[in-house]
Amino acid sequence: MHGSIDLSKDEAFVADARDVLGSEFVLTGEDAQLYASGARYGSGVALCVLRPASTQEVSTLVGLAVKNDITLVLQAANTGLVGGSTPDGSGMQAVLSVDRLRGDLRVDPIDRSVRVSAGYRLSELNNALDEHGLFFPIDLGADPMIGGMVATNTGGARFIRYGDVRQRVQEVEVVLFDAEGTIIKLGAQSRKSSETLALKDLMVGSCGTLGVVTSARLEPANRPTSTANVLIVPRDLDSVDHLLVQLEKLSGPTLSAFEFMSGTSISIAFNHVPSLSNPFSQAIPDFALLVEFSAYGTDPTLAERDLESTLIALYEDPTEAIADAIIGKSDDFWRLRHSITDGAKNAGEVIAFDLGFPRSQVLPFRSAAISALQAALPQLSVCDFGHLGDGGLHFNCVWPKDAPPLSPEQKAKIRDLVFDIAVNQFNGSFSSEHGLGQSNQAAYNRYIPERIKQISKQVTRSFASHPMGNVKFGQASNRGQDHAG
Amino acid sequence: MHGSIDLSKDEAFVADARDVLGSEFVLTGEDAQLYASGARYGSGVALCVLRPASTQEVSTLVGLAVKNDITLVLQAANTGLVGGSTPDGSGMQAVLSVDRLRGDLRVDPIDRSVRVSAGYRLSELNNALDEHGLFFPIDLGADPMIGGMVATNTGGARFIRYGDVRQRVQEVEVVLFDAEGTIIKLGAQSRKSSETLALKDLMVGSCGTLGVVTSARLEPANRPTSTANVLIVPRDLDSVDHLLVQLEKLSGPTLSAFEFMSGTSISIAFNHVPSLSNPFSQAIPDFALLVEFSAYGTDPTLAERDLESTLIALYEDPTEAIADAIIGKSDDFWRLRHSITDGAKNAGEVIAFDLGFPRSQVLPFRSAAISALQAALPQLSVCDFGHLGDGGLHFNCVWPKDAPPLSPEQKAKIRDLVFDIAVNQFNGSFSSEHGLGQSNQAAYNRYIPERIKQISKQVTRSFASHPMGNVKFGQASNRGQDHAG
Repeated sequence: MHGSIDLSKDEAFVADARDVLGSEFVLTGEDAQLYASGARYGSGVALCVLRPASTQEVSTLVGLAVKNDITLVLQAANTGLVGGSTPDGSGMQAVLSVDRLRGDLRVDPIDRSVRVSAGYRLSELNNALDEHGLFFPIDLGADPMIGGMVATNTGGARFIRYGDVRQRVQEVEVVLFDAEGTIIKLGAQSRKSSETLALKDLMVGSCGTLGVVTSARLEPANRPTSTANVLIVPRDLDSVDHLLVQLEKLSGPTLSAFEFMSGTSISIAFNHVPSLSNPFSQAIPDFALLVEFSAYGTDPTLAERDLESTLIALYEDPTEAIADAIIGKSDDFWRLRHSITDGAKNAGEVIAFDLGFPRSQVLPFRSAAISALQAALPQLSVCDFGHLGDGGLHFNCVWPKDAPPLSPEQKAKIRDLVFDIAVNQFNGSFSSEHGLGQSNQAAYNRYIPERIKQISKQVTRSFASHPMGNVKFGQASNRGQDHAG
Repeated sequence: MHGSIDLSKDEAFVADARDVLGSEFVLTGEDAQLYASGARYGSGVALCVLRPASTQEVSTLVGLAVKNDITLVLQAANTGLVGGSTPDGSGMQAVLSVDRLRGDLRVDPIDRSVRVSAGYRLSELNNALDEHGLFFPIDLGADPMIGGMVATNTGGARFIRYGDVRQRVQEVEVVLFDAEGTIIKLGAQSRKSSETLALKDLMVGSCGTLGVVTSARLEPANRPTSTANVLIVPRDLDSVDHLLVQLEKLSGPTLSAFEFMSGTSISIAFNHVPSLSNPFSQAIPDFALLVEFSAYGTDPTLAERDLESTLIALYEDPTEAIADAIIGKSDDFWRLRHSITDGAKNAGEVIAFDLGFPRSQVLPFRSAAISALQAALPQLSVCDFGHLGDGGLHFNCVWPKDAPPLSPEQKAKIRDLVFDIAVNQFNGSFSSEHGLGQSNQAAYNRYIPERIKQISKQVTRSFASHPMGNVKFGQASNRGQDHAG
């Protein structure tokens, strides 16, 4: 050990970590920078990057970090959008990457469960599940690692049918942030268990503050044998809620996605990816719904037939809620849908919001927020899309390239304006499915009631003897005089 | 206030509570006894029973209890089976019943959510949802109140399709166990929210130790428009897992129940309820599966047709897993299924177990446990049934009426034997869906790892400044010198 008096704690930690992992897997300097930059937000500076290959190595490293008072920031595929997986600018936080934790990937087809180490990608998991007719049904634009999905409780586009990660985690193996680097399992190997407080559910979505999730036992879903998609142009915005309710009633769990795209978001996608085929026979509508049906059984045309008969029933509905329904290639529709984010980036500077609402409040919020933004900053455009079936809204504000750059004050004004309307007027969540990180810490501080902050801080201490991650659940720093517990 | 020196703390508390609620709603003596006896387990003795009618009254009472060092035991419909809702024998615990909390029952059909106070029965909730084509799909033998369902995270017979209560709770209003009786909301009004640690998920299933759930915002499901049921006699026990996997693959979420009943459990049901119609043309089989399909849409025969075509596919399967398939009246099948518990009680003394397993382990456990019990106590019979689709097993041991009564030592031996085999050999949970109470506290103490007990104790203190409920999550009592936090 290198804790001698001529080394600082930070230097001693890096040296000790090299003893544990070998120098090859303790990155510093330029090598570390790849792990210190986020997918959407700017760079931090890492003291070092640790790449353990086993739970035991994680445990040893955590023990060293606690003893040397080093904050670990956990990172999986680093596809997150809120600065949760990258260090701050201090150069004092060490990144612990789970990308080499790949010891386990075992499917139990009878139990319909899979044990998987944190360092596997979602796509790798799905490849392993495929031969059993299974898949992990959290549908995302990115290809994250399992450790990150568990840490942030990702949702995605098919939440309305398959729920979130938390509902599909049975058990997690975790290294706790204490001097021993204690390894424990939370949850159970059974779907139903009421043996303890729901500590497993708490660990999911804790964004790297309660422990290192090294592996998880997950519940995949059976893969549908047919899917069918339709693009619906609603008669007007008032028809949208009616369509959602009627579709759910008519199709139950066959409805696997109910997404919406605004006309502006469709336009920027076409502008950015000219090869996208345009399914609209006339002008791009103000609003389109992407509806997906998924069906099971031996008949490969079932989803399509279900969708057609449901559309006929909807057309017969006296409310005449549908202006147009375009049945086409599903891949084209989803390609369009998945091109919006890049389209927005191409169009200008994006101030992105990941908001959640009661379903009945999404469209009223949208009208109110767009009006307020137009009054405040007429050049700003909103290119929004989202998971209307579960009340999720990706409210992207785009500042045009040819305008003078936004000042920090203008950006802060946009954030406060949108968040205030969402949270205070429409019972919204400021973070729907992207988790918590550096970029929404201010919103946490602003909107979460003090008592919940207090409880969260104390709950964190129940797991961790040392504050980790770069999310602060307490009002002030987690560190300092109130560190006991 | 009655805190003068001539009254004990307990007497002062009862007197203060009468000031808050009026004497009518603070029961003592014989009036209290109805609330002090459990549905299955023996009686306790209550200091008094409190029946507040509003969240504010709950808050005031909690504050009084904390100040007077009184332990509150929360009770809803008192249909629980583990002694979680009734006081111990000390006469020092006060029962706080939520049965008069009935301020709110509001359905938002567009959001497909409902806000409901803790004192409503499940049947009342379902009546209110029915006009919107919705229902709360937690299917139980009893008719509990919402407060109890949230506190214990009930599962039930259709978990395989609809999940548990936790997945369907969006937000809870809670009175915390502190001197102020703090009223807070945990969770969000949106389905997706990652704003905070999952404190709402922790509250669900906390069995009255973290706070009083006064109301909840729930997510009901659309009611299927058709259901169909079949009783399947599998060729042998080895065929059961295969049938489950094939049924899931062929039908996806159309499969809404996959229950099993042992031959002994079917026999005792017939013995107890002679009016039950016997669907079996020949002798009662060793094992039967109750399979339910639920379908949506305008065609009321859809579930039946789906079930028939699925059965044809299963009959064509070369494994010949089905010995017999009996299509009959669904009500008859479920009446049989729901008569088992009373049948067991009628047959003798019941030592009941509510176990959960990986699905692949249910039948191996069953064989091992039955063999071990037969060797130890040949007169004991096992009348088991369960939710095989989610690994749940109600393993009822019945001691015949005409045998000499079981001694406490014999009962303890049965419990230890079954739990040890379940937990240590088959990765089982000793409490699957009934929650924690006095009757499974010993199993908690025995099987839960020390570190999880420690964390649970500290997490409890993060919410509650005074220990409440009769479940002890710590190793020792929650009270005493280590009370700070």
